[in-house]
Amino acid sequence: MKSDSKSPVVILVAAQLGENIGASARAMLNCGLDRLRLVRPRHGWPNPHALPSAAGADRVLETIEVFDTTAEAVADVSCLYATTARLRDMIKPVLDPRAAAFEARGRATAGEQVGWLFGPERAGLDNADVVAAHRIVHVPLNPEYASLNLAQAVLLMAYEWRMAEHAEIPKLRGVKEWERAATQAELDNFFNRLETSLDAGGFFEVPEKRPSLVRNIRNVFTRAQVTNQEVRTLHGIITALLGKPGRPDKTT
Amino acid sequence: MKSDSKSPVVILVAAQLGENIGASARAMLNCGLDRLRLVRPRHGWPNPHALPSAAGADRVLETIEVFDTTAEAVADVSCLYATTARLRDMIKPVLDPRAAAFEARGRATAGEQVGWLFGPERAGLDNADVVAAHRIVHVPLNPEYASLNLAQAVLLMAYEWRMAEHAEIPKLRGVKEWERAATQAELDNFFNRLETSLDAGGFFEVPEKRPSLVRNIRNVFTRAQVTNQEVRTLHGIITALLGKPGRPDKTT
Repeated sequence: MKSDSKSPVVILVAAQLGENIGASARAMLNCGLDRLRLVRPRHGWPNPHALPSAAGADRVLETIEVFDTTAEAVADVSCLYATTARLRDMIKPVLDPRAAAFEARGRATAGEQVGWLFGPERAGLDNADVVAAHRIVHVPLNPEYASLNLAQAVLLMAYEWRMAEHAEIPKLRGVKEWERAATQAELDNFFNRLETSLDAGGFFEVPEKRPSLVRNIRNVFTRAQVTNQEVRTLHGIITALLGKPGRPDKTT
Repeated sequence: MKSDSKSPVVILVAAQLGENIGASARAMLNCGLDRLRLVRPRHGWPNPHALPSAAGADRVLETIEVFDTTAEAVADVSCLYATTARLRDMIKPVLDPRAAAFEARGRATAGEQVGWLFGPERAGLDNADVVAAHRIVHVPLNPEYASLNLAQAVLLMAYEWRMAEHAEIPKLRGVKEWERAATQAELDNFFNRLETSLDAGGFFEVPEKRPSLVRNIRNVFTRAQVTNQEVRTLHGIITALLGKPGRPDKTT
């Protein structure tokens, strides 16, 4: 199954290592992309070193298209993004991967074919290829050590493409069907039992400090946002620590 | 030159391939990070396969620290992020790398030591390691092909850390001057004492259920992200509930 035709094409120019072609395919499929093109791969194509590093992303390798020139490889592209570590002496918009992916999403949604161009491992894209691009993509890396592996560069673009699709919504995971957040009443009940037990155990040596200590203890459990099941567990802990057999009250 | 001591530590648990350790070091240094720790690397350390894929990030390899257990490797960490492809049956906040890096920046700025935990290539982190974490980091990848290469996972976190540098950092809740987030070692110490006391109190009636109950209990307190002062309070609670005069140990 081919992806939506409006998804970006990834074009690797003069890639040297089959391992990097395979790893790029893997990174792309991780992010839902599968249209990979090669321009003059150093060791031809297919390359037996690509398969192991593709790690199962075989269908991306199987549909690779190979071209003699960058011009042919990008012929159907209407917005071309050239990734480069060195900022060139060219007057072109420079975007980081996030801004580039965001913009590319907009263009793709509007029906444009976008393409991302990556140069060979050692030298990067040559100027002629960069000139052909509409945008330069520059990753704001450590200036003292900015040499990014080819597949890592592909991953960052593909990841930003994917992230541009989703909003980030942190949420609690793994709450079971029969579990739910504890009610305030359940928590209060637990707190009252705990504090009564602490009074009996001489925990609050200085009476004036009792209110702030109580508040601090309640804070810990409130912050944890416990479930009803966890409140039951906490009751069990009190029972066990008090060393009384059975459950002393039926409050849970 | 060591980086700022508050920069995150990257911890690789049971990494199989030296190539991935080297590529992780490279990705880290690309993003300005250099503190790498290994827990039980499959083929020991040093590993000759790491150097070529580090591609010049030698100083990260040279300062690698090796540990026998995850607990030792994260002992000085007060906010631990566990990266995982599979969403576990655990009640913990789940963040994508962007939200995680953003939050980690805030914590590091406030003086906390944050750590990022990565599991072995095939299996990922085991549950015991995930339980110890405060946050789960999940990359929203293609659900049909979500297996990310180890060094690629490291890159995404390091890249988001770097991208978050110029973002506005959220202010953390009102921790007092003399308070700080509890370290993993302080938490472990508390857990061990609690569980020993629960064993003595007959809390774990069904031995087969002990591991999951222990995990649930640890989850509650890990999720609360307690301070060192709160750990002392929790110790005091155990002491009081056990009904012994004085403090039975000096662990706090």
